[in-house]
Amino acid sequence: MSGTSPPRFDEAFAAQFAELLAWRRDVRRFRREALPEGLIEALLAQAELSPSVGHSQPWRWVRVTDAAQREAVQASFARCNADALGDYEGERARLYASLKLEGLREAPEQIAVFCDHGTAQGHGLGRKTMPEMLDYSVVAAITQFWLAARVAGVGVGWVSIVEPEVVRTALGVPAEWKLIAWLCVGWPEADSEVPELVRAGWERGR
Amino acid sequence: MSGTSPPRFDEAFAAQFAELLAWRRDVRRFRREALPEGLIEALLAQAELSPSVGHSQPWRWVRVTDAAQREAVQASFARCNADALGDYEGERARLYASLKLEGLREAPEQIAVFCDHGTAQGHGLGRKTMPEMLDYSVVAAITQFWLAARVAGVGVGWVSIVEPEVVRTALGVPAEWKLIAWLCVGWPEADSEVPELVRAGWERGR
Repeated sequence: MSGTSPPRFDEAFAAQFAELLAWRRDVRRFRREALPEGLIEALLAQAELSPSVGHSQPWRWVRVTDAAQREAVQASFARCNADALGDYEGERARLYASLKLEGLREAPEQIAVFCDHGTAQGHGLGRKTMPEMLDYSVVAAITQFWLAARVAGVGVGWVSIVEPEVVRTALGVPAEWKLIAWLCVGWPEADSEVPELVRAGWERGR
Repeated sequence: MSGTSPPRFDEAFAAQFAELLAWRRDVRRFRREALPEGLIEALLAQAELSPSVGHSQPWRWVRVTDAAQREAVQASFARCNADALGDYEGERARLYASLKLEGLREAPEQIAVFCDHGTAQGHGLGRKTMPEMLDYSVVAAITQFWLAARVAGVGVGWVSIVEPEVVRTALGVPAEWKLIAWLCVGWPEADSEVPELVRAGWERGR
């Protein structure tokens, strides 16, 4: 894909890249059909070109297909979402209840993304005064995954309304893996360049 | 830039996008000449198309031009780097001492990036069980800034070997702003698709 001399990106590419950023979006409405074989692997390979502190590459991707594991996460979302609703009052509570915040039941692919706090790779370089750099490295990789997916026409939604410990336990991953994200992935039902929360008016009256 | 119907990205774009990811790199060797007027603002506008939890957009960018402020950060790096060197022994200490880990003295643009923990935007949505999502939103924006910069041929280096509190105090930012990154930005002296730490053999003998 890449040669030995650095690429020069022309104006046409830059304009398309700007469109990619504008249309990336957090997707919560998915078609249920499976993605083509090998596509997720290709997208993850692009994500792993991401920067990481000390070249530690601490990302751990777990593709979750087991029905019981998925249900445990759906139940965690339902609990957390009901709890969050209780924090709002009046019109804002009504609005919150109307939001669709995840595609946990529809998205054909579900990926739990962890940061391996036990990794020796990188020999600690660059994270002595800012140990959170290890987690940030995983966030950067997720961001690249998101953009790479959108290039392929695939939608991604990041679900954070879950209990990290419940997810970790349900998947049986090592204790030193910290949950960074739960990703719903699939073909989007519809595209938009306006964020769903903006369309719903979540920022009104702040 | 973007129309009302979603863009379709063709194979030529996808191939160039893959090259962008491969050649992004953390840059530590910069030419000292200034960047064209308005370029940083354009790149930050692209970065701000990034996803953020609850549409909170908590990123705060501080372009640092003051010589005394820059020197305070260089001094912080020098302290932290000497301290980190003390953690390594023998051949690895020799290797660490030989690494060029930042371009603090050469990069014409220096940007401190903070997460505003005091923001009311987003009304707390999506970060009750994972409050760290606010910081992650800033990391995603930095990742997009990095890629947008590379599209324009501009290099970015993320410096984490500093004391966050020293940086915050030197810049006089509000107490609720958390330092996420110190970015060195400028034209790179040379491009490579191989990370500097890999070229230096930092992972050997792990």
